[in-house]
Amino acid sequence: MDASGIKKILSDVEKKKISVPAAMAKLRYFPFHDMGFAKVDTQRHLRCGFTEVVFCLGKKVSEVRQIFAGLAANGGNVIATRADKKIYNALKKKFPAVVYHQDARMVTLKKKKIKPTGLVVTASGGTADIPVAEEACITAELMGARVERVYDVGVAGIHRLLAYRECFREANVIIAVAGMEGALPSVIAGLVDKPVIAVPTSVGYGTAFSGIAPLLTMLNSCVAGIVTVNIDNGFGAGYAAGLINKAISDKD
Amino acid sequence: MDASGIKKILSDVEKKKISVPAAMAKLRYFPFHDMGFAKVDTQRHLRCGFTEVVFCLGKKVSEVRQIFAGLAANGGNVIATRADKKIYNALKKKFPAVVYHQDARMVTLKKKKIKPTGLVVTASGGTADIPVAEEACITAELMGARVERVYDVGVAGIHRLLAYRECFREANVIIAVAGMEGALPSVIAGLVDKPVIAVPTSVGYGTAFSGIAPLLTMLNSCVAGIVTVNIDNGFGAGYAAGLINKAISDKD
Amino acid sequence: MDASGIKKILSDVEKKKISVPAAMAKLRYFPFHDMGFAKVDTQRHLRCGFTEVVFCLGKKVSEVRQIFAGLAANGGNVIATRADKKIYNALKKKFPAVVYHQDARMVTLKKKKIKPTGLVVTASGGTADIPVAEEACITAELMGARVERVYDVGVAGIHRLLAYRECFREANVIIAVAGMEGALPSVIAGLVDKPVIAVPTSVGYGTAFSGIAPLLTMLNSCVAGIVTVNIDNGFGAGYAAGLINKAISDKD
Amino acid sequence: MDASGIKKILSDVEKKKISVPAAMAKLRYFPFHDMGFAKVDTQRHLRCGFTEVVFCLGKKVSEVRQIFAGLAANGGNVIATRADKKIYNALKKKFPAVVYHQDARMVTLKKKKIKPTGLVVTASGGTADIPVAEEACITAELMGARVERVYDVGVAGIHRLLAYRECFREANVIIAVAGMEGALPSVIAGLVDKPVIAVPTSVGYGTAFSGIAPLLTMLNSCVAGIVTVNIDNGFGAGYAAGLINKAISDKD
Amino acid sequence: MDASGIKKILSDVEKKKISVPAAMAKLRYFPFHDMGFAKVDTQRHLRCGFTEVVFCLGKKVSEVRQIFAGLAANGGNVIATRADKKIYNALKKKFPAVVYHQDARMVTLKKKKIKPTGLVVTASGGTADIPVAEEACITAELMGARVERVYDVGVAGIHRLLAYRECFREANVIIAVAGMEGALPSVIAGLVDKPVIAVPTSVGYGTAFSGIAPLLTMLNSCVAGIVTVNIDNGFGAGYAAGLINKAISDKD
Amino acid sequence: MDASGIKKILSDVEKKKISVPAAMAKLRYFPFHDMGFAKVDTQRHLRCGFTEVVFCLGKKVSEVRQIFAGLAANGGNVIATRADKKIYNALKKKFPAVVYHQDARMVTLKKKKIKPTGLVVTASGGTADIPVAEEACITAELMGARVERVYDVGVAGIHRLLAYRECFREANVIIAVAGMEGALPSVIAGLVDKPVIAVPTSVGYGTAFSGIAPLLTMLNSCVAGIVTVNIDNGFGAGYAAGLINKAISDKD
Amino acid sequence: MDASGIKKILSDVEKKKISVPAAMAKLRYFPFHDMGFAKVDTQRHLRCGFTEVVFCLGKKVSEVRQIFAGLAANGGNVIATRADKKIYNALKKKFPAVVYHQDARMVTLKKKKIKPTGLVVTASGGTADIPVAEEACITAELMGARVERVYDVGVAGIHRLLAYRECFREANVIIAVAGMEGALPSVIAGLVDKPVIAVPTSVGYGTAFSGIAPLLTMLNSCVAGIVTVNIDNGFGAGYAAGLINKAISDKD
Amino acid sequence: MDASGIKKILSDVEKKKISVPAAMAKLRYFPFHDMGFAKVDTQRHLRCGFTEVVFCLGKKVSEVRQIFAGLAANGGNVIATRADKKIYNALKKKFPAVVYHQDARMVTLKKKKIKPTGLVVTASGGTADIPVAEEACITAELMGARVERVYDVGVAGIHRLLAYRECFREANVIIAVAGMEGALPSVIAGLVDKPVIAVPTSVGYGTAFSGIAPLLTMLNSCVAGIVTVNIDNGFGAGYAAGLINKAISDKD
Repeated sequence: MDASGIKKILSDVEKKKISVPAAMAKLRYFPFHDMGFAKVDTQRHLRCGFTEVVFCLGKKVSEVRQIFAGLAANGGNVIATRADKKIYNALKKKFPAVVYHQDARMVTLKKKKIKPTGLVVTASGGTADIPVAEEACITAELMGARVERVYDVGVAGIHRLLAYRECFREANVIIAVAGMEGALPSVIAGLVDKPVIAVPTSVGYGTAFSGIAPLLTMLNSCVAGIVTVNIDNGFGAGYAAGLINKAISDKD
Repeated sequence: MDASGIKKILSDVEKKKISVPAAMAKLRYFPFHDMGFAKVDTQRHLRCGFTEVVFCLGKKVSEVRQIFAGLAANGGNVIATRADKKIYNALKKKFPAVVYHQDARMVTLKKKKIKPTGLVVTASGGTADIPVAEEACITAELMGARVERVYDVGVAGIHRLLAYRECFREANVIIAVAGMEGALPSVIAGLVDKPVIAVPTSVGYGTAFSGIAPLLTMLNSCVAGIVTVNIDNGFGAGYAAGLINKAISDKD
Repeated sequence: MDASGIKKILSDVEKKKISVPAAMAKLRYFPFHDMGFAKVDTQRHLRCGFTEVVFCLGKKVSEVRQIFAGLAANGGNVIATRADKKIYNALKKKFPAVVYHQDARMVTLKKKKIKPTGLVVTASGGTADIPVAEEACITAELMGARVERVYDVGVAGIHRLLAYRECFREANVIIAVAGMEGALPSVIAGLVDKPVIAVPTSVGYGTAFSGIAPLLTMLNSCVAGIVTVNIDNGFGAGYAAGLINKAISDKD
Repeated sequence: MDASGIKKILSDVEKKKISVPAAMAKLRYFPFHDMGFAKVDTQRHLRCGFTEVVFCLGKKVSEVRQIFAGLAANGGNVIATRADKKIYNALKKKFPAVVYHQDARMVTLKKKKIKPTGLVVTASGGTADIPVAEEACITAELMGARVERVYDVGVAGIHRLLAYRECFREANVIIAVAGMEGALPSVIAGLVDKPVIAVPTSVGYGTAFSGIAPLLTMLNSCVAGIVTVNIDNGFGAGYAAGLINKAISDKD
Repeated sequence: MDASGIKKILSDVEKKKISVPAAMAKLRYFPFHDMGFAKVDTQRHLRCGFTEVVFCLGKKVSEVRQIFAGLAANGGNVIATRADKKIYNALKKKFPAVVYHQDARMVTLKKKKIKPTGLVVTASGGTADIPVAEEACITAELMGARVERVYDVGVAGIHRLLAYRECFREANVIIAVAGMEGALPSVIAGLVDKPVIAVPTSVGYGTAFSGIAPLLTMLNSCVAGIVTVNIDNGFGAGYAAGLINKAISDKD
Repeated sequence: MDASGIKKILSDVEKKKISVPAAMAKLRYFPFHDMGFAKVDTQRHLRCGFTEVVFCLGKKVSEVRQIFAGLAANGGNVIATRADKKIYNALKKKFPAVVYHQDARMVTLKKKKIKPTGLVVTASGGTADIPVAEEACITAELMGARVERVYDVGVAGIHRLLAYRECFREANVIIAVAGMEGALPSVIAGLVDKPVIAVPTSVGYGTAFSGIAPLLTMLNSCVAGIVTVNIDNGFGAGYAAGLINKAISDKD
Repeated sequence: MDASGIKKILSDVEKKKISVPAAMAKLRYFPFHDMGFAKVDTQRHLRCGFTEVVFCLGKKVSEVRQIFAGLAANGGNVIATRADKKIYNALKKKFPAVVYHQDARMVTLKKKKIKPTGLVVTASGGTADIPVAEEACITAELMGARVERVYDVGVAGIHRLLAYRECFREANVIIAVAGMEGALPSVIAGLVDKPVIAVPTSVGYGTAFSGIAPLLTMLNSCVAGIVTVNIDNGFGAGYAAGLINKAISDKD
Repeated sequence: MDASGIKKILSDVEKKKISVPAAMAKLRYFPFHDMGFAKVDTQRHLRCGFTEVVFCLGKKVSEVRQIFAGLAANGGNVIATRADKKIYNALKKKFPAVVYHQDARMVTLKKKKIKPTGLVVTASGGTADIPVAEEACITAELMGARVERVYDVGVAGIHRLLAYRECFREANVIIAVAGMEGALPSVIAGLVDKPVIAVPTSVGYGTAFSGIAPLLTMLNSCVAGIVTVNIDNGFGAGYAAGLINKAISDKD
């Protein structure tokens, strides 16, 4: 409900089309759909440009199913993140069109066709970082981005990375996913003048501290142009990359 | 054993109703019930206004059962927290009236009728925080509070929260339960002049550090009127809220 | 601006006393006073029951002076916390009536008479914890509470604490301030059925970790009824205690 | 030295304009200016779209002065960050045109006129966060962005923030700067569909842990679209915002 | 091999009873029994007053069995700590006389009769701390101490603890075992002038951080006379208590 | 006030020598001396075997002076720890007999002659650990122990340590003080069968983390018989060593 | 592709054997083998003196198998680290010659004969550290080193360690593996003038913090000549030791 | 005192050149020079190949001076690390030949001529890391190494680093010094097959955590061949590099 909505209500009051109490009820609160255990935000698409996502971690299967259904009823595309096989199976029964991305632990339901625009490049340091990278890629794709994947280009063999310099140059935004020492975003940002979204992963052992080591590396990069998200948060990186890529592409 | 109890003993000594050694024995120690592995505090209800609770974490089923029985023998209501199904089943056999609250992992035995007074409002940031919120609600209810639940009103869609402002205004005390970034208590405390008991949950991943992130958020709130309890400590929040609500309501 | 304010605007629109654009301007925003570097919340007193406090940490003296003046202009009592001597001197020039509480690092301006009601008892573990305890006491007093101070009653000599049991029993709410191992709130909460607001202090050395040790002790208390605030946050404890004490006392 | 540079060298070899050894010398290394204690990257402007910045922390005044001079000699705009008064005075002597931004601890030298385009909005939670926010603003401005400042709009009085919703909607990218509990970016990102760069500050005390608390809040935000930089890293946020804003504006 | 042993060798050389090379071989190394994966210290009993203990954590069953046998062959009493049922079964086969202490996860083999002397009192804060407390008690008993157990006397009901003051006064040394906030050792040490060995346990949740909270409480105690061991290290506390108790008792 | 004291009061009541109210007043509280900002525990010497110590950290000079005087009035020996030169000067004026131990930052007042008994050996890893070691030595000496100092015998040159093996063997209890990696207590405890009190110091840099590194080393020692105190807590180690040494020596 | 390779291409261009575009394609990138999910670095052996190792943690069995095959195709020796039984079985099918080192969790394929030279000595503190020590030994052996194992020589019985002094003196480099307090490397480095590579292990409990305690001990050693690797990183230690041993031996 | 020393003593006993007691005195302890507050290890040069170093941190000027003099008396070269100007001045008075290295905070006294052999290359990420790098260089030089310095070659401009590849290839061992994200050692180790000693520095701010960030990066490097020392420990890196370089060079 934006300014024009408020204006409409006020005009209706002025024209006595609606009563003052009715106007108050409309004015005070944004609409949302209350399920008791969850308040589904059916206007988020209007307000924030993208449908709400179901973050499955810690939710019961039955809760995920109901929230997913509530969002699907709005007609937009829907994503469920951190979804295991059991959740997929439960959603599959009700929505045969859902797709399961096993590596990325995501279930997606495409109800609207998406025409990819712009370019998001997602690089991963190692093979073990791919699940997180995939979560980023699929999210960005659902937000309308064309996505290129450049995997296993960590700093151990820097020539592998240098080989993709042209690819990075064409991107609107780059997502760099890495665990262990997490130096990948720094090296990429040192090569090109593009915003780099760094995603630390929990890949590693010992003092990797489940992703703290690469997170600190990324936050402390001596190269400008790097921003960071939570450990293993491929979704967050893909979403932010999607927003930026869309803003740049829409101007074309 | 309070001042009047001591006075009674001293008077009895003065009147030679009891001997000095007998008085000493009575004087020195408060009564409690010794089971060897546990000392059940049968007078805590008198001393602290509420029966002792069985905290099941780390106790054997047999130990829980004996302590629970010892408390139930006093005739008050009894709560077992952090109780799994196995504990419930063991208690059920001996006390068919016990109720199991699966989400909240609590077993309760109501031996005295409770007439709800006042109002405690419990808000949760997300659906995954509900188990902790329920532990708080059930505890407050057993302490005599009327409780309203406002779930899934996190800051991602702040209008969902604003819709409940009136509800928060009527509360004597508010419990705000949230994981991940844990900003819910701050936003609520910014809206109303009520004490807010903040409960961080272990919901989240990566740098949520099993609840440290929301705990720090709550401790550092720039809004006054917020106090905090341990991560996932719904019981502690419900107990403190119950105490405060009772003190306010008793004055009515 | 609450429900009745909105109703008034809508009625005025209906009666055509004001135009739709004028109504929109009024409707959309709550009033506050914009100084550029600070937005002073002149209606917080109405909204939250107490005037806004100036938290001086990190602010320039000139900024503090202007914010303080903005709040004082509303006619309520004003508090500046974490205020050093330099700030006091700057405020003193403009407001000769301000009082400096050196231990508590607070400047207060009482413009309205306060009649103390109820009872807040503030206990400190040691002598070195007194500055934080004083911050709590003065805050609670400005919120209308009668306050009793029980200092240096840490667990090293538990009889000193037991001597004050009656005092704790009369309180509506207890503030327990302690550094080092921070066991004071647990022991007090074990003795009486009152809400205890625990304040860890940065007193100690080595593994006290500037207050983390007592904070953890307080969060992990095995005694119910304890809630906690940030390290050295006497103000926060005093404010929450003030809110609770007022709610209980107002019902008398 | 990009693809066309390499092509040129190869052609020259083919045409025997230069010898093989001479070509090798040119081919192998990118050009930079070696001062012994520092290697000034004079082609970074070409490679990365912006001149290199002097990060003064830990450098001697004499070192800063020489590096600054080396960069200024290239004719672009130059920034020195984390610069104290002493550094400013040293630079002022040699470059009378430098400007000192005291709050932001920056020295800037504008040698090329900048025409502001697009819009970056920088919000701060409190007054004490302004120095970090200013570092971000000035950096973004030197990268060609039009910048609006919205300061002291923390969650304690959420209406102050809501009043600026339209402003946030017009931005290409938003920078949200906050210390203590750091909830500002979450609330802003919940209101608008713009990328939000979150900057935690070291403002606060106790468990704020010099900025760790707001950092964790920002990394764990339940709202999508937020990316984060190091504690107090206004420069990094301004730089990334400048890059994104430029990419969007350039398409206009 | 002590001073007299060296003297003997030197005398033998002087008297030419043994050759120089033979003396060198004897001189250089203390005797131990090499199994390849373990060097069993068969003279530790002489050197340190007590037989070596098998710490089972991280060792294979077959390794534990061989080391245990090596020690048993020396004729002293043997302890295996952190021993699960599988290890007990393996040892039982070879040494039918071994006893399994399930709570304490210990296997003991008494080959020499022990006459208990002195007094070690072991107190536990809660029922869940008993396994660690038992590990301490059994260890102290094998070192010759008479042991009294005072369990479930945490600070939540301080009168339960006060009831045992006489008992604590008779002890040569007190072991205080507690999880969660870990305040027990402080309260005990405040009552009596005896050395108190504090043992933090991993009992608790959330900010108990698997025993860090009580560890910090114990290290920071404001009461003198407390020393601390590792989290859950009942063995270490029992061993140190045994050493001290023995030194005091031996003088009787 | 022990059992005989209570008996006396009860007898007096029985014999009507004192009234019931007078008896109650005597019974309920232990005696202490209330100064408002401090409650001096004048019977601690009786209760705990040693006079109370003034811990100066965080106390004002005037507060220290009054507490010290209160304790000195009882006629026992008095210690002030963490005392800087300013405190010494203030105490010197009132008590010309006080001695200042600059390294150990202690002021002592000997009013009773002490005849050293038993043996406490204090070893330090390096020269920089001496101040903490001295705090331990002086404390133990005031508790009646004969003390030997073995300084700068860290593991870098293990032969320096081995040279003192006989000395360690004669001790009733050993204090081992070390910073940096803190391996000294382990090596000593591996050589002799004596209780070792380990004191980590804040000597070191980087990952020594102001004493956390040696603290962890000491808590995790694979050698039995080691107990630990807080970082830099020489006093605590000296006090505990004094208690143990006295118990052993008193039996002679 | 080293200098001579570049020279060759340039000469070919000069001689018009290849075209400029063809030269560019060759010049710009080092060769590697792209499998999509992994870029196998087939020239690492030439570039870095040793074949690439497959680090299995976080990789799927199918991914490990393909990478291993890619490396084996080059004809050198191949190592897979952190390999469980399932991986071994998968590799065994394709390469019957692979050997599984169960303790060390490694699979090795020797295609070239190795003649051991020099000497690396690997010491372990306890029996439970052997798996990590074995990972180091096998790695060093595959890099051509002669390796001696000295296990279970921790500081609890320092004479066991001293017995091997001659052995340490003969080594080119020493690997010291230890968990718990991790003092072993310090003691060894204090005895001989050899580089010591310290490997902390996750053996221990409580404040060992899964290897943080020994890591800090090793980083803070007061003895010079010690360098450290990640917790449980036997491979890294073995690799570095292999490099150093080879450099020393090659000069023979 | 090595094997031949022992043999000599035994022979002398056999030949009755010395008495048994005299032999015992010689045999039991290695010689060191006892100053009370320090035990100077005058034979470390023989035992460990290098004279002992004075680590000044935490030592008084007078103590440093005496220890330095004790070492100088042996005739070898002497180093004082972490030495401020005051220490230099004190040493200068007694030893006019000492040299002060201000950046590296070292005082050196060369009494024996050193002929540089081999090659140690020391790289630094930034200009601010130079003091730590210099400490490493000077130490390695005093241990006989030829040293090359390659400063300010951090990953922000990776071409600056690539330019020195040949230089790294010639080294026997490389020291890589870096603060902030600390990626330098990884990139270098990915280019050449040389052992790399990584030195994290405390350069940086916020989440650099005074060097923890680069330390973790270095410990978690995905490139093999890297070993790490304590934060800012240039001396330790230089010493280990010196040992390795000497072992390789001595074989020439």
